[in-house]
Amino acid sequence: MQATSPRMQLGQLPSGLLDALASRSLPSRAIASRLSHGRPTQRRDITVNQLDKSSDHRERVVILGSGWAGYTVARQLNPKKYQAVVVSPRSYFAFTPLLASTSVGTLEFRTALEPVRSRRSNVNYFQGWADVVDFKNKKVTIEESADDPSQGLALSRGNWDEIKSDVKKVALAKKGKTFDLTWDKLIITVGCYSQTFGTPGVKEHALFLKDVGDARKIRNRILLCFETAALPTTTDAMRKNLLNFAIVGGGPTGIEFSAELHDIIKEDLARIYPELMEFYKITVYDVADKVLPMFDEDLGKYAMKTFAREGIKIKTSHHVESLRKGPPGDDNAAKDIQDEYPCWTLRVKEEGDIGVGMVVWSTGLMMNPFAEKALGKIPSTPESGVKYISPGSKMSRSSLQWAVHKEPRTGSVITDDRLHVLLESDDEHGSKQRAIMEDVFALGDCAKIEDTTCPATAQVASQKAEWLAKRLNKGDFDKGGFTWKNMGVMAYIGNWNAIMQGGGGGSVSGRAAWVLWRGAYLTKSVSWRNKVLIPIYWFLNWAFGRDISRF
Amino acid sequence: MQATSPRMQLGQLPSGLLDALASRSLPSRAIASRLSHGRPTQRRDITVNQLDKSSDHRERVVILGSGWAGYTVARQLNPKKYQAVVVSPRSYFAFTPLLASTSVGTLEFRTALEPVRSRRSNVNYFQGWADVVDFKNKKVTIEESADDPSQGLALSRGNWDEIKSDVKKVALAKKGKTFDLTWDKLIITVGCYSQTFGTPGVKEHALFLKDVGDARKIRNRILLCFETAALPTTTDAMRKNLLNFAIVGGGPTGIEFSAELHDIIKEDLARIYPELMEFYKITVYDVADKVLPMFDEDLGKYAMKTFAREGIKIKTSHHVESLRKGPPGDDNAAKDIQDEYPCWTLRVKEEGDIGVGMVVWSTGLMMNPFAEKALGKIPSTPESGVKYISPGSKMSRSSLQWAVHKEPRTGSVITDDRLHVLLESDDEHGSKQRAIMEDVFALGDCAKIEDTTCPATAQVASQKAEWLAKRLNKGDFDKGGFTWKNMGVMAYIGNWNAIMQGGGGGSVSGRAAWVLWRGAYLTKSVSWRNKVLIPIYWFLNWAFGRDISRF
Repeated sequence: MQATSPRMQLGQLPSGLLDALASRSLPSRAIASRLSHGRPTQRRDITVNQLDKSSDHRERVVILGSGWAGYTVARQLNPKKYQAVVVSPRSYFAFTPLLASTSVGTLEFRTALEPVRSRRSNVNYFQGWADVVDFKNKKVTIEESADDPSQGLALSRGNWDEIKSDVKKVALAKKGKTFDLTWDKLIITVGCYSQTFGTPGVKEHALFLKDVGDARKIRNRILLCFETAALPTTTDAMRKNLLNFAIVGGGPTGIEFSAELHDIIKEDLARIYPELMEFYKITVYDVADKVLPMFDEDLGKYAMKTFAREGIKIKTSHHVESLRKGPPGDDNAAKDIQDEYPCWTLRVKEEGDIGVGMVVWSTGLMMNPFAEKALGKIPSTPESGVKYISPGSKMSRSSLQWAVHKEPRTGSVITDDRLHVLLESDDEHGSKQRAIMEDVFALGDCAKIEDTTCPATAQVASQKAEWLAKRLNKGDFDKGGFTWKNMGVMAYIGNWNAIMQGGGGGSVSGRAAWVLWRGAYLTKSVSWRNKVLIPIYWFLNWAFGRDISRF
Repeated sequence: MQATSPRMQLGQLPSGLLDALASRSLPSRAIASRLSHGRPTQRRDITVNQLDKSSDHRERVVILGSGWAGYTVARQLNPKKYQAVVVSPRSYFAFTPLLASTSVGTLEFRTALEPVRSRRSNVNYFQGWADVVDFKNKKVTIEESADDPSQGLALSRGNWDEIKSDVKKVALAKKGKTFDLTWDKLIITVGCYSQTFGTPGVKEHALFLKDVGDARKIRNRILLCFETAALPTTTDAMRKNLLNFAIVGGGPTGIEFSAELHDIIKEDLARIYPELMEFYKITVYDVADKVLPMFDEDLGKYAMKTFAREGIKIKTSHHVESLRKGPPGDDNAAKDIQDEYPCWTLRVKEEGDIGVGMVVWSTGLMMNPFAEKALGKIPSTPESGVKYISPGSKMSRSSLQWAVHKEPRTGSVITDDRLHVLLESDDEHGSKQRAIMEDVFALGDCAKIEDTTCPATAQVASQKAEWLAKRLNKGDFDKGGFTWKNMGVMAYIGNWNAIMQGGGGGSVSGRAAWVLWRGAYLTKSVSWRNKVLIPIYWFLNWAFGRDISRF
């Protein structure tokens, strides 16, 4: 994953500290308040009416999503000025850069999580999916999803057509319980789905690494593969299949996961299943001719050298065609025994059928169906909060058919450099009309500033979120637009090595970069609870080994 | 749960320390070996042939089960003298006294787990269910179950008939892959199932607290109930149902869980969902006229007073008749809306239908089907290792129809005071013949010493296991039989209070007992990793509150 460089981290630490002090989250303060039994209880709201009552003339900011953009902006809005309401199917924020570590047990899962509801924030929260957005009446309809089985898992669809048919199905399907929520300002941070390019079998059989539920599946799967391979009933051929781990996608996520996988095998499983070491294999596939494209050539070379030494195969210019259950060989035969042989067959154009114990899929993002479903044509624009750019009479404007401006290729929501959502329309003369929704913002992976090319990363999302929260708190949008400070990228490459490239172009690699990598994420981690737990787990797993209990 | 008193714990600590020293598990040793890259790799065996090869004339001890009895005896057998092989569907040992704490997040789940496979033990392990036991040829047939979905969950059946039909079904069903394992000594520690007395709906809808998977289900369920109750689409009536928590069974497990549940609500959820506090309710039901029967009257009274103060209702002499999905009221109506209303209806003879958000069922144990299935009649006894007690010619003896001696009422396997499994038979004159299987032992919840009444507790199981490991290591069974040292019982009763009753009859209650309670379990916990993590989590959750992320 991409991350901000330590420079910025250290710059941020003080504010983080003040933050924590202000919120009584430092041990000393907590202890004091414990002893005095003096911890005030925060009022939170359970019904929309109560929200209205308790808003006392503050503007309500409804935030759709609880990822890097949504969680950050919600926590940084000034509660005296705004009533922040987060609506998300996921009740926690996942610190994505640490997911790869949790997926092999280098860290415990919860060290990468922060609940949206917290004693230490003033954020209101409803668990649900935003469904219909009524821009005219500034109202969003929410379908509650407290018991959503997909919570914690990456969402993926085969392809665009499937998403469109999904959207239709959802539209037709009997709704779960829904409720309406009005906003003064709306912030759209719904994120993206995992991209599978419609590759057959991938969304059914591959594992992703986008949320903590995915990480747990992967951890259990790795240990299950070794446990099954250790059974006397398992043939050597099947052992080769079960312990053949394929990672598809050579971006930071795929690379960091393969490095962490190598670490747990070399440092822990090698001692517990020494007799299985001859069977395991880690391979990273990518269609491009190089992995880690965002790094300079020499850093890329360094990573490749490290991987070669660690025995991780990197296969560029390879095309994955399908993934199916059962071992390679005659499909029918495979169907019969697929249940007793828990392995899969990956078909690679350049290599044919390969038996694998696990495929971790990390080939990037695709548009969230929400954008397709709720952010299309706008029946009528609101009276206020819309700034019409191009000339034309007010009459004609409201009579025009407006639609949210989206990038045709990706479906990303296009915003101006203030992160306002843009509308467009063809007027009666067929010429483009444009408008700015001044109370509706979009950021994170689902959005894009017009004519810019920021990558869809946590770094950009959190910078936008911090910028937007500041502007809203100060009310100084006139001061100028958002500009991305490239803080550089870093990636863990295994065996206590990392590569790091500063925004300025400077680069570090090896053990030093690894220290900076850990330092950066430790500093960036949100709660003091996790700032304490993370180094403790780093130490314990180094001293005693990772926990291999599987449940 | 019942636990051993601190006296014994402290007595044990030194041996635990030496243990750890010997096994290089102390940080200093681990660090040293890390730095010198000098950690020896232990040889483990993946096939039965390899086991045979690597046994080098040691006796093979096959241990069925990885609970208190099996895990303890496996770790304490002298590896120079015996080749220990654990066969269990569960790849880890669960430290059951801490499960209640993990079920509300006072401790993280893994702090209550120890993997059977460990760098620091010489134990071989196969994941599977013991299936057929061939006493004559000293051979057990194992059905592999690495991918068993029930791993981590309490096992329960409606009643005896259902178990018997299960056994028939299993016998008829197409087997998974199986393999044979021969033993020189067999130790049966398969434990018990959860008792439901055939109460309709319980095994489908109730949650148990016997394994870490149960604890995780409970933790998610509690948080889901509050999150759902916080939705504007939830009526107040449904909030009452969702936040009505019923515990069935007033033994230590049920009582400790209700206390932990009270703690997380009062200490954490009250701050996060203050507006829901008017709705929640905790009730413990028991058919008996008192709870915690194993404690003296004054300790029981103290516990009741504490619970009354904490607002936990104790309803003795109450009879639970059924549990079904959906809210109370007309059954058909309930069926229609049961999906959108995730609550249950508990029918209590004395109270009628009650809407509940969660039922935790803890009414004791019932026999493991394995005893019914594999430990019945014995086609023919082995040549050696059987000691015939009552008179009669050897001829007639081997021609007799022998069966494992079991308690008719409970189905427990009966052993002598050396923990040897007993056989019985009717000879031609209709008089009882008895025999001792000198190489087959049974202990833990599935076994019982003839004419004794030790409770089925972790304390008894681990004392038997330690005794048996010592005898086997020293070979001095002639030195006398096992006698249980009652180390007393203790129970956490919430709000930093506990009750404790020494084996001698002395008793402690309140904060002091709570300190001893924590001290005892911290001392008793197995690995140094957990000895470090447990107090850290105790502190962090006290200072920052329990983590409420749900995934």
